[in-house]
Amino acid sequence: MTLQAQQSSLPPTIEWRDGTLYLLDQTRLPRECVVEAVDTVETVWRAIHELRVRGAPAIGVAAAYGLCVAMRREPADSRDTFLARLEAHAAYLDSARPTAVNLRWALERMLSHIRAERSATGAALYEALVAEAKRIHQEDIELCARIGEAGRALIAPGSGVLTHCNAGALATAGIGTATAPLYCAHRDGVAFRVYADETRPLLQGARLTAYELQQAGLDVTLIADSMAPTLMAQGLIDLVIVGTDRVAANGDVANKIGTLGVAIAAKHFGIPFYVACPSSTLDLRTASGADIVIEERGAAEVTHFAGQRTAPEGIQVRNPAFDVTPHALVTGIVTERGIVRAPFEANLAALFATGAAA
Amino acid sequence: MTLQAQQSSLPPTIEWRDGTLYLLDQTRLPRECVVEAVDTVETVWRAIHELRVRGAPAIGVAAAYGLCVAMRREPADSRDTFLARLEAHAAYLDSARPTAVNLRWALERMLSHIRAERSATGAALYEALVAEAKRIHQEDIELCARIGEAGRALIAPGSGVLTHCNAGALATAGIGTATAPLYCAHRDGVAFRVYADETRPLLQGARLTAYELQQAGLDVTLIADSMAPTLMAQGLIDLVIVGTDRVAANGDVANKIGTLGVAIAAKHFGIPFYVACPSSTLDLRTASGADIVIEERGAAEVTHFAGQRTAPEGIQVRNPAFDVTPHALVTGIVTERGIVRAPFEANLAALFATGAAA
Repeated sequence: MTLQAQQSSLPPTIEWRDGTLYLLDQTRLPRECVVEAVDTVETVWRAIHELRVRGAPAIGVAAAYGLCVAMRREPADSRDTFLARLEAHAAYLDSARPTAVNLRWALERMLSHIRAERSATGAALYEALVAEAKRIHQEDIELCARIGEAGRALIAPGSGVLTHCNAGALATAGIGTATAPLYCAHRDGVAFRVYADETRPLLQGARLTAYELQQAGLDVTLIADSMAPTLMAQGLIDLVIVGTDRVAANGDVANKIGTLGVAIAAKHFGIPFYVACPSSTLDLRTASGADIVIEERGAAEVTHFAGQRTAPEGIQVRNPAFDVTPHALVTGIVTERGIVRAPFEANLAALFATGAAA
Repeated sequence: MTLQAQQSSLPPTIEWRDGTLYLLDQTRLPRECVVEAVDTVETVWRAIHELRVRGAPAIGVAAAYGLCVAMRREPADSRDTFLARLEAHAAYLDSARPTAVNLRWALERMLSHIRAERSATGAALYEALVAEAKRIHQEDIELCARIGEAGRALIAPGSGVLTHCNAGALATAGIGTATAPLYCAHRDGVAFRVYADETRPLLQGARLTAYELQQAGLDVTLIADSMAPTLMAQGLIDLVIVGTDRVAANGDVANKIGTLGVAIAAKHFGIPFYVACPSSTLDLRTASGADIVIEERGAAEVTHFAGQRTAPEGIQVRNPAFDVTPHALVTGIVTERGIVRAPFEANLAALFATGAAA
């Protein structure tokens, strides 16, 4: 497949091979491209917590395999023991990141699958667990491809597209969410330019998005987050497309800190602002963005850079990892079932009722 | 003076002592507090160009002393030779930074003063040069204090104030421009909180503003630039106050990259957005922001950090150092003559006609 060939210089973000989970350590990119074998549930928890694997869909796939890693180490004789242990591990993994709905979604899906599984032995239940994780993995690859086709037509020849953070191949098992339409348009020979916000404090845009798009041969330009409004004012941005960690029932969007500022600036300049995600990221049980818990991370991410202090000792810091973009600033949500537009509350509900966007 | 005592832990930004110019190297803050003796015009040029001295007012004072440094090394016998050399040095220093209007303003003021000076000998002209530089220096200290008093009432008890970049004591010879109202309110016992944008790519907010406000005992919290809209959404910001490198005749404001995004977000949330500067920064010869040349700086500021690469090799980069905030987003301009409000074109012109804000 062309899209995989485009990324051939990058190893897979997540791989399950011979009973072991392999994760590409994204905290070391772009300087080092290191794949780590992860063989305890604590290591999976840390990999998720420390952002070595990150991006909502990739976290979901890693967590699903994380349960396999956990239960491989704990073969249980009885179904009850297996289930009890599985639930404990799921609760543990769920605590690794508070905001990503895909983490809980994947863990709950794994639990439901095993609860419905009739096999009585631990070995058979383990096999069922691995099979379900592989399905979640494969489905993510397919979801990305379908998001790409759904959003493909948004990328006009000669246009400038801004993205924030990394909702790319590195955030998923496939061609990404926000990046999927870009990869599809590039595959189809559309000439366009991508601007990647560096995305402070952890620089996922500089380290990951700029890297993966460059590796795939796209025309990508890196900017500091604060430069996006100026590029918009200069007429260089025709479209914004970002990923999301959770979309509430009313269309409010939780995504990497800085997304709200991009959305406000896009509105100011009349530039369409799209969000791309699999429908598993649509959380209809969350009424609005006000109900989304925003993870506040440690001060050192802001006060230090590459281990070096860049702010005065003892300075107070705020470090919200996400923000909430109100649905009024969102032009559309690109899912594997099509593009959902306002009114979001009705159209998101309809998406789940009918299985296709209006 | 109380305000100087507040900053006593910091050496002066600029000092002229026994015929030598001393500059606090701001690129090393907050890790090292190093004062350098600067004794050639080339070193002054580099200190301005490399941002070791930065901030529009401080650049003006440093450039004025820079001419003294240049002419001290070049004692000329005749008035004509002195003037010719002085003009050549002024043109050279003027090339160190393209956007700061105070640089040219200070150099032209020095030239005008010497052209009007009747002394015939190089030694006498040199003494006149030093005297004029000292006047510019002293005036800057006084201007800052007057800007502080003019903007003092904007700081309400219990409020949150956002600032971007460093328009502080470190950017001037006095108590800063954007920070002057903060220092005055703090002196008066007003309790309020300051949020300092870190200001990528060069982190003047993290390195300088957070540092100088902390040293002076203010309640200051550091954030990444992209977090400001979220803090606004949370109701934590009641006022924005920033400095500027140049205000056009119509009130458009050139300031550090990222200011435009802050102004757009402030407008979105209905938060007052003020700009503070001495009237020498008001450039009525520049009709609008469209006429302001924006310095584009090297890619390494975005791709590297403390000498360490954080973005992929060969990545394309945009790095505009400034942006232009349209006057429609500006609530008021705080000058030593009072606060100027819309309509800016008329009220800025009136400021120069009458010498006081409406």
